[in-house]
Amino acid sequence: MKTYFECIPCFLRQAIDTIRRVTDDEAVHEQIVRKVLFAISEMDMQKSPPVMAQRIHRLIRGFTGETDPFKQAKKDSNRFALKLFPELQKKVDSSDSPLETAVRLAIAGNIIDLGAKHQLDEVNDETICKTIEDSLTAPFAADVLDDFREAVKRATDILYLGDNAGEIVFDRLLIEQMPRGKITFVVRGTPVINDATIVDAQMTGIVDIVNVIDNGSDGPGTILKTCSDEFRRRFEAADLIIAKGQGNYETLSGVPKDIFFLLKIKCPVIARDIGCEVGAMVLQRNADSL
Amino acid sequence: MKTYFECIPCFLRQAIDTIRRVTDDEAVHEQIVRKVLFAISEMDMQKSPPVMAQRIHRLIRGFTGETDPFKQAKKDSNRFALKLFPELQKKVDSSDSPLETAVRLAIAGNIIDLGAKHQLDEVNDETICKTIEDSLTAPFAADVLDDFREAVKRATDILYLGDNAGEIVFDRLLIEQMPRGKITFVVRGTPVINDATIVDAQMTGIVDIVNVIDNGSDGPGTILKTCSDEFRRRFEAADLIIAKGQGNYETLSGVPKDIFFLLKIKCPVIARDIGCEVGAMVLQRNADSL
Repeated sequence: MKTYFECIPCFLRQAIDTIRRVTDDEAVHEQIVRKVLFAISEMDMQKSPPVMAQRIHRLIRGFTGETDPFKQAKKDSNRFALKLFPELQKKVDSSDSPLETAVRLAIAGNIIDLGAKHQLDEVNDETICKTIEDSLTAPFAADVLDDFREAVKRATDILYLGDNAGEIVFDRLLIEQMPRGKITFVVRGTPVINDATIVDAQMTGIVDIVNVIDNGSDGPGTILKTCSDEFRRRFEAADLIIAKGQGNYETLSGVPKDIFFLLKIKCPVIARDIGCEVGAMVLQRNADSL
Repeated sequence: MKTYFECIPCFLRQAIDTIRRVTDDEAVHEQIVRKVLFAISEMDMQKSPPVMAQRIHRLIRGFTGETDPFKQAKKDSNRFALKLFPELQKKVDSSDSPLETAVRLAIAGNIIDLGAKHQLDEVNDETICKTIEDSLTAPFAADVLDDFREAVKRATDILYLGDNAGEIVFDRLLIEQMPRGKITFVVRGTPVINDATIVDAQMTGIVDIVNVIDNGSDGPGTILKTCSDEFRRRFEAADLIIAKGQGNYETLSGVPKDIFFLLKIKCPVIARDIGCEVGAMVLQRNADSL
């Protein structure tokens, strides 16, 4: 997906949110904002938004030396999601359609996205719980779910691209409903925003139930060009990709692979691109793959 | 008032809204956005937001050659307000406190601000009518109104700084409640966003009831440095200033003159600066003048 003008305020908001986690020094905030504005003024708008975000977060890391501004936020999200986990697991187990319930909850977990929200405090325990409740009955593409079920059954090598810390606990619910031996779970190579890395996969026990690799990249999505050779080989070889979240959608929606995107729509640009409303729960198969 | 980071998305939105009125050519849109981002990256944040907006709109005019992108929008606003005028005049005339009602309506008229809104279509006939209705009963600083009444009575030379096209029809209601001979109504020197110029004062009949001058500037506010010598002399000599709208507040709130600001709060930055909520109706005397 290309970058739209509407993405620019979001880049700025994200940069300011990040830098405020690193220092209270307003002079530093202003320097970063100027550098970010200059960087955006030069950007290639044909590239996806995470490419710009990657550059911005590199710039902030380079300028401040702080490599993981969302470290504590990620721990908190993991802890909160782990607290909910037993109850969510019961919901799946007692459901008439455990796979559907697990897919719904995995999408609901995508609300824990500190890069996409307009105001950080919109992602709080209360909104997460409400999103979970709503997700169980929200309108949903039942026909795509049948395709998903079939594709999982037929696939032999599935890459499950995770998105955010905390959210990956919700992914675990879905992984438990699928043949684990076929699945490799993927995290980002380096911390960026609150995206999950190997540390989060360890903290939430994902590493104990399924094979986990990282993509070798610091992009908040799957920017194949900046992923490791090893990951790109795995991506090429996989016969099914499950991609969580907006960042993975933005970076992979044009890639000719069999990809199911699972995400919660948090911004009007992606809503327009997909053709749905902000707030929608999306399970969508990559049109390019068919 | 200084510029805050939160103002930056607004500069961009305003620039994009403006350039889309001039051309459908997306390549031009992108060039303008890059120039605007670069300009903002260099800006002096100690200056008020209208100083940056002035620079942005100069840049757009220079690049496109279009000197008045909001020309039609201003005509439409004037026409719509003129259609409402007789009924509003009746509301004032039949009020127990005509001055208060006129002040309330003059503030309500400040909703017609195409620079401040987050989405242009938020300013439509319906929202204007709702704002008018609400304004008659909304919470309001009654004690400041007494000061205002007293100040108008004692003043000998009043400058009434107008803000937007359409809105100036609402100002007319208030002017009619004051000694007209003391009042000079001020419009911007050159078109910028939908701010009123002499053309609007003519179209709405303000020129027929009171002396009208322009400030010689293309700033969306009263940026004294870029106003004409003649206007600055008049500003200096006046013993009371009535300043309408956010732009005049942002540019004059620190100026040591007896100024009453009348405005509708449309953005969280100004809400914080004044200490009120977005949506509030403000009648405030410049603290620096006391």
